[in-house]
Amino acid sequence: MTTSFVACEAALTSLPESLLIGVSGGVDSVALLHALAATGCKPVVLHFDHGWRAESGADAEWVRGLARKLGLKFVGGKMRAAKKGPREAEARAARYAFFAKVARRLGIRDLVLAHHADDQVETFLMQLLRGSGAAGRGMDAVSTRDGLVLHRPWLGVWKKEIVAYARRHKLSWREDATNTDTHHRRNRLRRQVLPYLQKQFGKQVVENLFRAAEIARAESEWLDALCAKAAREPELSVKALRMMSLAQQRRTILRWLQGRGVKDISFADVEATRGLLEKTIPAKINLSAGQFARRRAGKLFVE
Amino acid sequence: MTTSFVACEAALTSLPESLLIGVSGGVDSVALLHALAATGCKPVVLHFDHGWRAESGADAEWVRGLARKLGLKFVGGKMRAAKKGPREAEARAARYAFFAKVARRLGIRDLVLAHHADDQVETFLMQLLRGSGAAGRGMDAVSTRDGLVLHRPWLGVWKKEIVAYARRHKLSWREDATNTDTHHRRNRLRRQVLPYLQKQFGKQVVENLFRAAEIARAESEWLDALCAKAAREPELSVKALRMMSLAQQRRTILRWLQGRGVKDISFADVEATRGLLEKTIPAKINLSAGQFARRRAGKLFVE
Repeated sequence: MTTSFVACEAALTSLPESLLIGVSGGVDSVALLHALAATGCKPVVLHFDHGWRAESGADAEWVRGLARKLGLKFVGGKMRAAKKGPREAEARAARYAFFAKVARRLGIRDLVLAHHADDQVETFLMQLLRGSGAAGRGMDAVSTRDGLVLHRPWLGVWKKEIVAYARRHKLSWREDATNTDTHHRRNRLRRQVLPYLQKQFGKQVVENLFRAAEIARAESEWLDALCAKAAREPELSVKALRMMSLAQQRRTILRWLQGRGVKDISFADVEATRGLLEKTIPAKINLSAGQFARRRAGKLFVE
Repeated sequence: MTTSFVACEAALTSLPESLLIGVSGGVDSVALLHALAATGCKPVVLHFDHGWRAESGADAEWVRGLARKLGLKFVGGKMRAAKKGPREAEARAARYAFFAKVARRLGIRDLVLAHHADDQVETFLMQLLRGSGAAGRGMDAVSTRDGLVLHRPWLGVWKKEIVAYARRHKLSWREDATNTDTHHRRNRLRRQVLPYLQKQFGKQVVENLFRAAEIARAESEWLDALCAKAAREPELSVKALRMMSLAQQRRTILRWLQGRGVKDISFADVEATRGLLEKTIPAKINLSAGQFARRRAGKLFVE
């Protein structure tokens, strides 16, 4: 972990040349856009208006103006109006759907995002508290989603380093009012829960969580590599699964279900599928998302 | 996870016959002692007085009386008086040293402890917040320490199930006053931080953390098995390490340093040792506990 804003520039050296960038107008994405442009890169600027607040249209206009000033192409998108403000998960899904649509249209699949170390800590803690099929691992510096390749070059850079970078370069940005709305779980985590944990256990709690996420992420990659082959198979061999350790069974089944297109996989789904390895249990189980896993002729299938 | 106190009995079926049991006098260990005795087992009752409060001598007498009533051998130990109350880590070290001494004297190496699912959640969260060489994994159902084999048969049983068991069997126990002292980090976690997280994110936070610990623990076992051989070597081959993934390097080095008797290994120690794989870095680094790791002739050593 570096502690100077030099980190902001150093992290950008291994990005592809042809890029999309998601810019909300907040300090993180504005600073990232500036740092990218300073390297001579000409990313296409994407802005998605979630319609969370009345003045969000003004944010879109502001980002459009910034792109124009930098001589960059701009594409805006807008959330379809919801009765009450959209939930975080819906908003995120709509945003990525917009990014993916633009990527297809422009033939550019690489999208750079301004997620930073504080975001990583929040994501990791949310994953642990929310529970899911896997333990927490945070975000990856490079990952794929909806046909996009997501790059997060600032995942190891702290928010305060980004703000220092932005101030040093005399950038201006929009304050994102949704960031202060503690109705959103992530904001509550950022503005209340993490400061509370720091008060209880010391300032270094945040860095400790970052490190735990980094260890978990690297180990998760290692484990995924170990079950990558099985996870790509259309069906799993019961015999092969039975020879695996508990954790290997779980992760192989999790990645295999994901590979079969099963959504919202819970730990209970993984364990129920693992239950199919026992002879005494019915040979078909329900998965959360309305699909089934079935055992037949020594193999597991998704239906 | 079962939800009935039947769990308390079911979990005791695979313990060795000749056993030590740690009994503080609190509800967890008193219930465990009762449940064990009900299976016909005759464990030796060990009680360690940490001297945390004036009446702790009375706890020791109470546990001695309980053992006598059940026809069981009792061995008591006492923390040497400290100027101010001992820190948690010192108290724990002294307690295990006492257990180990008794184990050697009696020739019984198996010790059963009453740690339960709520303890597991606290341990896991403490590990994450405190930071260490590894990410959190909680406690193991069976582990070794100071020549003892520690058994935690109730690691999957919730505190409330234990209390239900104790009430159903009309047991009496001592309230442990140290449990309400929020000066201790673990008590603060139990009495303030976890209820706060539940209030912020819902009651299920505790079960989610338990599940994350269970996943992490099983994966950690899997990974340890993968680097068990290297971890036993007196020296590590630089060439072999270089061929490993990042996570495998880290975990191999962590387990190897532990196997070499290095204490208090931080993530920074692991990363500094990993730095020895690069040619450009000095061939000797300091470890936290005053020892050194050195590269010589294509091998890593601890000195």
